Amino acid sequence: MRGDGARDEDRVVIRPSPLNAETPESALPDEITPAGRHFVRTHFGIPLLDRGRHRIAVDGAVRERLELELGELSRLPGRSVALTLECAGNDRLSFTPLPTGELWGGGAVGTAVWGGVPLREVLSRAGLAPGAREVVVEGADAGPAEEGEGTIHFARALPVKKALDPDTLLALEMNGAPIPREHGAPARLIVPGWYGMASVKWVTRITVLTEPFRGYFQRDRYVYDYGAGGTPEPVAEIRVKAAITAPRDGDQVPVGPVLVCGWAWSGAAPVSAVEVAADGGDTWDEARMLPASSRYRWQRWEYAWEVRSPGRHTLRVRARDDAGRTQPDAPRWNRLGYGANGVRTIVVTAR
Amino acid sequence: MRGDGARDEDRVVIRPSPLNAETPESALPDEITPAGRHFVRTHFGIPLLDRGRHRIAVDGAVRERLELELGELSRLPGRSVALTLECAGNDRLSFTPLPTGELWGGGAVGTAVWGGVPLREVLSRAGLAPGAREVVVEGADAGPAEEGEGTIHFARALPVKKALDPDTLLALEMNGAPIPREHGAPARLIVPGWYGMASVKWVTRITVLTEPFRGYFQRDRYVYDYGAGGTPEPVAEIRVKAAITAPRDGDQVPVGPVLVCGWAWSGAAPVSAVEVAADGGDTWDEARMLPASSRYRWQRWEYAWEVRSPGRHTLRVRARDDAGRTQPDAPRWNRLGYGANGVRTIVVTAR
Repeated sequence: MRGDGARDEDRVVIRPSPLNAETPESALPDEITPAGRHFVRTHFGIPLLDRGRHRIAVDGAVRERLELELGELSRLPGRSVALTLECAGNDRLSFTPLPTGELWGGGAVGTAVWGGVPLREVLSRAGLAPGAREVVVEGADAGPAEEGEGTIHFARALPVKKALDPDTLLALEMNGAPIPREHGAPARLIVPGWYGMASVKWVTRITVLTEPFRGYFQRDRYVYDYGAGGTPEPVAEIRVKAAITAPRDGDQVPVGPVLVCGWAWSGAAPVSAVEVAADGGDTWDEARMLPASSRYRWQRWEYAWEVRSPGRHTLRVRARDDAGRTQPDAPRWNRLGYGANGVRTIVVTAR
Repeated sequence: MRGDGARDEDRVVIRPSPLNAETPESALPDEITPAGRHFVRTHFGIPLLDRGRHRIAVDGAVRERLELELGELSRLPGRSVALTLECAGNDRLSFTPLPTGELWGGGAVGTAVWGGVPLREVLSRAGLAPGAREVVVEGADAGPAEEGEGTIHFARALPVKKALDPDTLLALEMNGAPIPREHGAPARLIVPGWYGMASVKWVTRITVLTEPFRGYFQRDRYVYDYGAGGTPEPVAEIRVKAAITAPRDGDQVPVGPVLVCGWAWSGAAPVSAVEVAADGGDTWDEARMLPASSRYRWQRWEYAWEVRSPGRHTLRVRARDDAGRTQPDAPRWNRLGYGANGVRTIVVTAR
């Protein structure tokens, strides 16, 4: 991570207003990221919602419209999921040329335990009407549209199938405590395996549509725009990636054995392997994978690196998943800079 | 520059043996780099040559073979040239994927005043024979060939025209003192506008050829190998490049005006402009160029950057030369990792 400067509440602030802040490098080795150090991505001011009066509307193509209080929600069958959430713009700094957008290094990723109610429990109570196709979740966060006029709310859609996934939650808790304000209090969506934009915060409304959603954050932002006249496609599943947590880029290390370790994750399928190449070239060794503790949570890997000489050395790391996806040498460039998962490189000096 | 670790004599050691060491970031703002901080690139052990007994042979396609003592050399008409020397592998770390080779960051560049005798003075005393095509300069540095058997010396060829350039020197002095041992004492070639491999150190022999030179460092190393079956071409002129000396990557800066400055250079032609883009996107502002003090020496540029908000910011810088050459967004990948001149990016945090 570069530009590791201004800090606020143990995070690295990329932009103070609206607040966008990374998990600091020092917290990346934590298997569960503390809420105060977990990255925060906001598009507008952070809403302050009254837990006692908060209501979540369920409407659109449903058999019965609902208006849920938090008390009602918390009486539905609960579930908790430990999951790795990554911002779609994480590692934007690794794109060449640099796209516009928030200047995320590699810290817009973290893992937390989210507790709440499966969205399917709510949807089954409302009842999906025939032709239900997408579920749009809207947050209380709103502001002026960047292009055009008027005020827009943050909102994203899921296909009905993903909305009914038992691990897609309407979450009320983060790491065993009420969700902190900046993470979406009192209720946020949690969509396992998808980039963070799908996990809508400050949820106020759930609308079932029979047509594709055309909201700003669905069609104009959080889309892969590869140029060349192709139709941009909405960003969805988290791409396979490995991060190195030790040693850190720029560290000094001894000559001899150095334990290299980090995390690997993929939204599409479990990670199957992590490979490591020292000092350039194309010789890749397999790292040791520690057993996966659950499906949507990053998985630890370790590699015993034998540093044979003093001086500068580089290490590159890449992951592969069960669906056969791998990391490209350089992230695939797109106009808005999403989904960067190029092979990670660190440079260390041995003495 | 990353991996800024082991230091030796005020340089950043990339590899201790054979010695390869960068100019540290702290010395890059110096218009003239002190000899002790100027980068050193060696391929074998550093020769220790006796000034009193040293001889330089001139042979091959010449009318008269010569054997020159240093005393004789220093009585020929002298000249000094201030020039920026850059290793062909400088910024190799900016290639994706990382090629094999010495792991240079951005410090394999420096500017020094070289004093000595134009090579043309020596060649005119020997007299070029008809058909003279290339001038091969050989150093005392030698070692086992990486591929194949036997011992090889470092040697590189110049076209006769470049060898006869009045600024191509057989140098005896660096920054007004005898050349230090690691920089090629007692005599080295200095080839203005060409990457450092042409400026052969510890010169022992100058041979005029009527055929293209086929030495290891001419045909197997220091060639651009772009793959795809093309014939590799020898590395020659320094590509256009701008470096940022302040602020440094990762620095904290105030909100408000920040003076950004650095150097720009090009082997092919004088630098005509330096442009700056803040925070991604494609809006380029022109930096102010300070007057060039001589043709082959890096030129200072400055840019008054108005940092408008706290948080993370990036700055990209690129140079253009009078021959119309510009810097690519990413360096053009080649198998051995030479000539990296991708647009420079720094990340800073304002508070």
